[in-house]
Amino acid sequence: MEKNMVKPLGDNVLVELFEKEKQTAQGIYLPDNAQKESSQEGKVIAIGQDEKIEVKKGQKVIFRKFSGSELKISGKNYLILKNEDILAVIG
Amino acid sequence: MEKNMVKPLGDNVLVELFEKEKQTAQGIYLPDNAQKESSQEGKVIAIGQDEKIEVKKGQKVIFRKFSGSELKISGKNYLILKNEDILAVIG
Amino acid sequence: MEKNMVKPLGDNVLVELFEKEKQTAQGIYLPDNAQKESSQEGKVIAIGQDEKIEVKKGQKVIFRKFSGSELKISGKNYLILKNEDILAVIG
Amino acid sequence: MEKNMVKPLGDNVLVELFEKEKQTAQGIYLPDNAQKESSQEGKVIAIGQDEKIEVKKGQKVIFRKFSGSELKISGKNYLILKNEDILAVIG
Amino acid sequence: MEKNMVKPLGDNVLVELFEKEKQTAQGIYLPDNAQKESSQEGKVIAIGQDEKIEVKKGQKVIFRKFSGSELKISGKNYLILKNEDILAVIG
Amino acid sequence: MEKNMVKPLGDNVLVELFEKEKQTAQGIYLPDNAQKESSQEGKVIAIGQDEKIEVKKGQKVIFRKFSGSELKISGKNYLILKNEDILAVIG
Amino acid sequence: MEKNMVKPLGDNVLVELFEKEKQTAQGIYLPDNAQKESSQEGKVIAIGQDEKIEVKKGQKVIFRKFSGSELKISGKNYLILKNEDILAVIG
Repeated sequence: MEKNMVKPLGDNVLVELFEKEKQTAQGIYLPDNAQKESSQEGKVIAIGQDEKIEVKKGQKVIFRKFSGSELKISGKNYLILKNEDILAVIG
Repeated sequence: MEKNMVKPLGDNVLVELFEKEKQTAQGIYLPDNAQKESSQEGKVIAIGQDEKIEVKKGQKVIFRKFSGSELKISGKNYLILKNEDILAVIG
Repeated sequence: MEKNMVKPLGDNVLVELFEKEKQTAQGIYLPDNAQKESSQEGKVIAIGQDEKIEVKKGQKVIFRKFSGSELKISGKNYLILKNEDILAVIG
Repeated sequence: MEKNMVKPLGDNVLVELFEKEKQTAQGIYLPDNAQKESSQEGKVIAIGQDEKIEVKKGQKVIFRKFSGSELKISGKNYLILKNEDILAVIG
Repeated sequence: MEKNMVKPLGDNVLVELFEKEKQTAQGIYLPDNAQKESSQEGKVIAIGQDEKIEVKKGQKVIFRKFSGSELKISGKNYLILKNEDILAVIG
Repeated sequence: MEKNMVKPLGDNVLVELFEKEKQTAQGIYLPDNAQKESSQEGKVIAIGQDEKIEVKKGQKVIFRKFSGSELKISGKNYLILKNEDILAVIG
Repeated sequence: MEKNMVKPLGDNVLVELFEKEKQTAQGIYLPDNAQKESSQEGKVIAIGQDEKIEVKKGQKVIFRKFSGSELKISGKNYLILKNEDILAVIG
C-alpha cells in the first residue's frame, strides 16, 4: 500500500510524522513539562473534503501531541488527525 | 443468517474486519504505541441511509481501532461502526 | 400485565430479547473481546411516536449490548431502548 | 401538605411510586442484572407545563430506575422526574 | 446586609432554606435512600430577569438537594439556585 | 502594573476579592457545609465587551466560590470570572 | 525555525511566555492557592484567522494557567492557545 492510496474522509487529515532527528535539526524541542499539553510536527499528505480544513497537501504543521489515530505504512509513521487538532502551519 | 441480511440504520456502517494475515500482506502494521489511538482496516458490506455517509459498499476503509459494536456471522468478525468513526478510504 | 400494554414514549422502542438458544440457531455469536462493545439481538414489540424511529413492530434488530432499561413481563426479558441504540435490522 | 399541593415546573413530572407488593401483583419483576439499567413503575400525580410532556395525570408509567429527585409526603414515596426519564405508559 | 439587598442575575433565584423543624411540621421527610437524589424545600426571596424563571417571590418551592451556592445572611441560610434546579411549587 | 491596566476580554469580568475582615463586618459568613457549593463576594473592577454581562464597574457581586482564574496585583487578590459565574449583585 | 514562521490556524493564538524574572518586575505574583485556577502572562506573537479573536500581535495578555499546547523555538517557551483561554489584555 502506498501512502497516496489513503484518502481521508470528512474533516480528517493524513499527516506524516517527522522523525526525531529532523525535529532536532529544526531547533524545536518539546518542553519537559507534564502540566501542559505538548505539540508535535508533521507534514500533510492528504486532506478530506470538509471545507473547514485550512491546511494543504505538503504543508508542515503543528498539532496537539496526543491527538489522532496512528497508521504505519511501509515502516513510516502516519497520523489521521481531525482538522481541529492541527494548531498551526510552519513556514 | 447471511451478512447481506444485516441492514444498518441511520449513520451506521457494517464493516467486515480484515484478517491479520491480510493486513500483513498489505504492508500495514499498527504501531506499538500505547499513547495514541490506533487505526484498523476493513471492507464496507452495507451502509445506513444517512446522507452524511461518504463510503460505499465494497470500499476498503480505515477506522478508529476501538470504535463500533462487534457482530460475528458464520464465524467471521464484523463491526457496526458510526460513519464518523471511519477515517479514510484506501485505494 | 401483557407486553402489548407497554406503550413506549418519544424515541423509545420496546424490544423482546432473543433467548440464547435462539441466537445459536441463527448462527450469530457475540465475539469474545473485552475491548470492543458487543451487539445483541431482539424483536421490536412497540415503538414511540418520534419520527426519527426507523424500525417497525415485528422486525428483528441488532442493538448495542449494554444499552436500554430492562423490564420483565411474565418471566420474559424486555428492553426499552432509545432509537439511536438500535444499529441494524436483520432480514 | 397534600400531594395535590405539589405543582411541577417546566418538564418535571410528579410520580407516586408503586409499592413492591403492588408490583408483584402486576407480574412485573425487575431483572437481576447489574449490567443493564433497570426500570421502575409509578403513577403520574401532576405534570409541568412543558409541551414535550407526553404523559397525563393518572397514567401508569415506566421510568429509568435511578432517575429523579425523591420526596416523601405523609409517609408515601414520590419522585419528581424529568419528562425524558419516563420511558413508557402502561395500559 | 439585608436579604433584600441580594439581587440575583440572569436565571438565578435566591431561596431561603426552611429550618428542619419547619419541614417536620409540614409532614415532608426526606427519604433515607442513597441511590436517588433527594429534594429540599425553601421560599423564593428574589429572582433574576431571565424570562425562563417560572417562580415568583414568596412562593414555596422544592429543589434538587445538592444544587445551588450557599450564602449566610444574619445567621440564616440562603441558596442561589439556577432556575432549572427548582422542580416544583408548593401550594 | 495597575489594576486599571487589566482589560477583560469577551465574557470575562475582573473582580477584586473582599478581605475576610470586610466580609465579617458585612455580616455574611460562608456556611460550614461540604456538600453544597459556597459563594464569595467581591467588587467589579472591569468588564469585557460581551453583551451578556449584566454587572457594572463598582458593583458588589456574589459569585461561585471556586470559579475564575486568580491574579495578584500589588499584593491584592483579583479574579477573572466568567459572566455566568456571577450569581447576584449586592445593594 | 523562526517564531515568525509559525502561523496559527482558526481560533489559535501563538503566545510567547514571559520569563519569571520579568513577571516579578511587573509586580504580578501568582497566588499560592490550590483551589482556584491561576492565570499566566505572555505576549501575542501571531493569531489565526477566526473573527472571534479579540487580541492583536504584540499585546500583553493574561490566560488560564494550564491551557494551550507548548512549543519551544530556539530555547524560548511558546504556547498555542485557543482564543477562549485568553482572559484579558494588559495595558
